[in-house]
Amino acid sequence: MKILLIGASGTVGSAIDHELSQRHKIIRIGRKSGDFQVDISDSDSIRKLFEQTGNFDALICAAGSVNFVPLATMTAQDFELGLRDKLMGQVNLLLIGREFANDGASFTFTTGILSHDPIRTGSSAALVNGALDAFVRAAAIELPRGLRINSVSPNVLVEAMGSYAPYFRGFKPVPAADVALAYAKSVEGLQTGQTYRVG
Amino acid sequence: MKILLIGASGTVGSAIDHELSQRHKIIRIGRKSGDFQVDISDSDSIRKLFEQTGNFDALICAAGSVNFVPLATMTAQDFELGLRDKLMGQVNLLLIGREFANDGASFTFTTGILSHDPIRTGSSAALVNGALDAFVRAAAIELPRGLRINSVSPNVLVEAMGSYAPYFRGFKPVPAADVALAYAKSVEGLQTGQTYRVG
Repeated sequence: MKILLIGASGTVGSAIDHELSQRHKIIRIGRKSGDFQVDISDSDSIRKLFEQTGNFDALICAAGSVNFVPLATMTAQDFELGLRDKLMGQVNLLLIGREFANDGASFTFTTGILSHDPIRTGSSAALVNGALDAFVRAAAIELPRGLRINSVSPNVLVEAMGSYAPYFRGFKPVPAADVALAYAKSVEGLQTGQTYRVG
Repeated sequence: MKILLIGASGTVGSAIDHELSQRHKIIRIGRKSGDFQVDISDSDSIRKLFEQTGNFDALICAAGSVNFVPLATMTAQDFELGLRDKLMGQVNLLLIGREFANDGASFTFTTGILSHDPIRTGSSAALVNGALDAFVRAAAIELPRGLRINSVSPNVLVEAMGSYAPYFRGFKPVPAADVALAYAKSVEGLQTGQTYRVG
């Protein structure tokens, strides 16, 4: 398969790369690094990406930004990054990318545990993750040509606990390699409309 | 209790009014009708509303618009109404309204079944409902002063089947009066961070 991997240089992206490059051709995409670059918050940038990559069999997005801010000081503006980048960025990867998707291609997006196991400062992340998991369930039933869509909702990563531990006390972190398996299940399996919770 | 009821003239709003006005003072709010008017997609309109109503013990929002469009023809633009109105409209009712909320006051928002039981044309509704249900869980743990927040996620209404039936074949509709009970549980109970699924 020809797999587009957005966020390829990140902790999760690198683990996905390691898992899937054993069996497939990986096109590595980043905001600033990789074979091609994209800003997922910008529809024009997304379209330009696909014009460069050409058709594909699977798209994985392991990227997406949100703000972490205490609810006490949050305003509507603090939600904009998450809405534009992690949420509508990934939705737009489907809306635009489907034109370049081969029959039976899959889209696999990244959400996260905070939608159902919240932490302080996590209300925007929770909102975005919940939105995407629900979108995936709904979009799956309307996709033509055997196109599929799933999300992976990981716990905090073992590899991230150096900096994130104070925010995730009591969470049992999961290795990025375990998270990568869920992307392999989405890409190499046949399920659609699923959210794979890891850890 | 002094209860602000946004969407008071709608099918669900009227049922909530009937249920809660037996025991509480209801301030009826609509886009164009009621004691006061608000456009929840406009932060300035929301702030002006609260300056008119003054402090409150409970806020219920039984309003919020989204577009219903076949996924095949959807663009990012089709998601904007849902993001601005039903999603961020209700989030902003909390972000702004908390300044006017008495200690122990509750916020009760409206989502819906499409986040977990999708229909065709429902991908924006699903996204918005999933976002709000997750936001409610996350925001609840950060609210001070005993403030509470819940959502009510109803099935399609018996009263709406006249026009909605073709979109909801096989769904067992629920009477608006049953949906209203979930709002009473949210307002008159003590739970927080919950999504009450009705039907």
